[in-house]
Amino acid sequence: MAVLCKPAVAVPDHVITMEDTLELARDLHAHHSQLGLVLRLIEHTGVKERHLVQPLDDVLRHPGFDVRSEIYERESKARVPQVVRRALDNAGTEPADIDLIVYVSCTGFMMPSLTAWLINEMGFRYETRQMPIAQLGCAAGGAAINRAHDFCVAYPDANALIVACEFCSLCYQPTDLGVGSLLSNGLFGDGIAAAVVRGRGGTGVRLERNGSYLIPHTEGWISYAVRPTGFHFQLDKRVPGTMEPLSPALQAVAAQHHWDASALDFYIVHAGGPRILDDLCRFLDVPAEAFRFSRATLTEYGNIASAVVLDALGRMFEEDSVGESGRGLLAGFGPGITAEMALGTWVDGDGGVRTEQPRSDRRYA
Amino acid sequence: MAVLCKPAVAVPDHVITMEDTLELARDLHAHHSQLGLVLRLIEHTGVKERHLVQPLDDVLRHPGFDVRSEIYERESKARVPQVVRRALDNAGTEPADIDLIVYVSCTGFMMPSLTAWLINEMGFRYETRQMPIAQLGCAAGGAAINRAHDFCVAYPDANALIVACEFCSLCYQPTDLGVGSLLSNGLFGDGIAAAVVRGRGGTGVRLERNGSYLIPHTEGWISYAVRPTGFHFQLDKRVPGTMEPLSPALQAVAAQHHWDASALDFYIVHAGGPRILDDLCRFLDVPAEAFRFSRATLTEYGNIASAVVLDALGRMFEEDSVGESGRGLLAGFGPGITAEMALGTWVDGDGGVRTEQPRSDRRYA
Repeated sequence: MAVLCKPAVAVPDHVITMEDTLELARDLHAHHSQLGLVLRLIEHTGVKERHLVQPLDDVLRHPGFDVRSEIYERESKARVPQVVRRALDNAGTEPADIDLIVYVSCTGFMMPSLTAWLINEMGFRYETRQMPIAQLGCAAGGAAINRAHDFCVAYPDANALIVACEFCSLCYQPTDLGVGSLLSNGLFGDGIAAAVVRGRGGTGVRLERNGSYLIPHTEGWISYAVRPTGFHFQLDKRVPGTMEPLSPALQAVAAQHHWDASALDFYIVHAGGPRILDDLCRFLDVPAEAFRFSRATLTEYGNIASAVVLDALGRMFEEDSVGESGRGLLAGFGPGITAEMALGTWVDGDGGVRTEQPRSDRRYA
Repeated sequence: MAVLCKPAVAVPDHVITMEDTLELARDLHAHHSQLGLVLRLIEHTGVKERHLVQPLDDVLRHPGFDVRSEIYERESKARVPQVVRRALDNAGTEPADIDLIVYVSCTGFMMPSLTAWLINEMGFRYETRQMPIAQLGCAAGGAAINRAHDFCVAYPDANALIVACEFCSLCYQPTDLGVGSLLSNGLFGDGIAAAVVRGRGGTGVRLERNGSYLIPHTEGWISYAVRPTGFHFQLDKRVPGTMEPLSPALQAVAAQHHWDASALDFYIVHAGGPRILDDLCRFLDVPAEAFRFSRATLTEYGNIASAVVLDALGRMFEEDSVGESGRGLLAGFGPGITAEMALGTWVDGDGGVRTEQPRSDRRYA
């Protein structure tokens, strides 16, 4: 059965603090009619620090969509391989053990995606399946876990690598001055995460069931306007309230598995913002403590889009407090409005041991 | 076992003939130093007609990436539902029977992708999985079939809908004057295709095995430059020769299944250009006739990117000449350079009959 192994995470060196962000907002938008509201919203995010792939001065300048696309490519190639290498090590796997690479990123667009370059550079087999996903936004972290899970259900000897690479600062749009945009400027951060889903063996979360749910008629609530200046993030003010319609979907997936969503041993969810976590506590009737991993990601890194769930999961591995057979829920939330949900059980397996079957004998379908 | 059912295809009304294309090239590029070569290359494509979502005059004007993105959204919403409806009918399925939508398109970018809108508009269940793929280019037609296949291997009661929506004319870049760009301007067309992969029942190609192959160190051969003017298609002159390194991969996948790639009953491949089909005849040692479906797509519609394989497959269904248990190969080729390959067997099933199990009782994983 598929086991989601310990993630590896990296954030860039350049740091912007909450104080920097507030000062910047006051400075750049001194005459904005809703500056007071914007400052309160940013303070309320609880995001203490974020990491950026470029120095702040460079982030604030828009050098053109072409230059930003080049920066995305350069920085992803410079940073992703180390994270992937650590994720492979964490799972006791080598590049040659991987059958599928799910690469998710909504903050830069490359054709071909980074999967082709990774296969060439890192020694993955040329037969490795490539699944690049750019259009599920923050939900893509959950989707990546779930599609990797599906693949290992189909081919029980297979292993899948998940990579989430998000440089949200490359989508900063200085001319977008709506409240939602200014709030987003104080919320999103940059980060890279990777993890392996092993078909056999491994220590981590044994994936048991997954599900997807779209809140009816909300496809305009989180969207990109695609313009000459690149992707413009558009956030509807109703988005922070979406845990009310999504909680029943989380409960339904748990109930299908004869679990109670209110009585699980761990919760790893996308921390889009503080209200998402507050509301989930309320609607799922679980203590705030249950979301401490997601909360820590939000506080220390900001919303790093599809990488949040893997970073929060990594913190749970570090804490090492979930016992054998502990049950939990993982979920990504994003445009659609879509929730990608998974149920899993903690297993202490043979995390360090490679699959024994020689790869050349492996068969699919 | 997963059965790929009869595709539905639609092309827009506006038509450009080979003669129009040549006249246009002579007119627009009268002083181009390699005009003669460009004209010969275009003539050699064998593309007699292509269909366009807009009148030619509008195609030739670049109204800005924002306007083109809006046209992509408007035209896809106007045209995709009818094609999907026919694909569902062809498979004897209803929207509520579908568990996964794989939406592939490399010629327009929407966040969220059209999957969310389709679910809302067409009555798909809100639990339907969404797999939008924008970064596999022309290989995505094959990838869509293969990922739908994998999903049905994982969940044998599931059904997957594949949609390929390609408006290549929205990527026309009037300032790109290289030979590869001018050739592409005479090669690519617009089209939409859809098909259902049924987990149980259905008439069509029973999918038995799939595989992927990346030609080492060719990730720069087909690529997009992402610029303020949108996606700029970049084609290396070595691309037409890629069937030589890819043919052994096709043979290997067949051999893994104890089949001989030179002795199959049908071949459905991406018709990127005429040389791809000519070379495959040679390297696989099969008669040109074997590629008549792909050749017809190229001749009548041009290269419609990820939609080619589904259109060629639709022509095979129309010809109705493959007998029960006939064996065949399907393959998409695209950026990477990646081949997405599948092996299948023709089955005359209960194509018109719905799955009997009520959906509410279905379980996954």
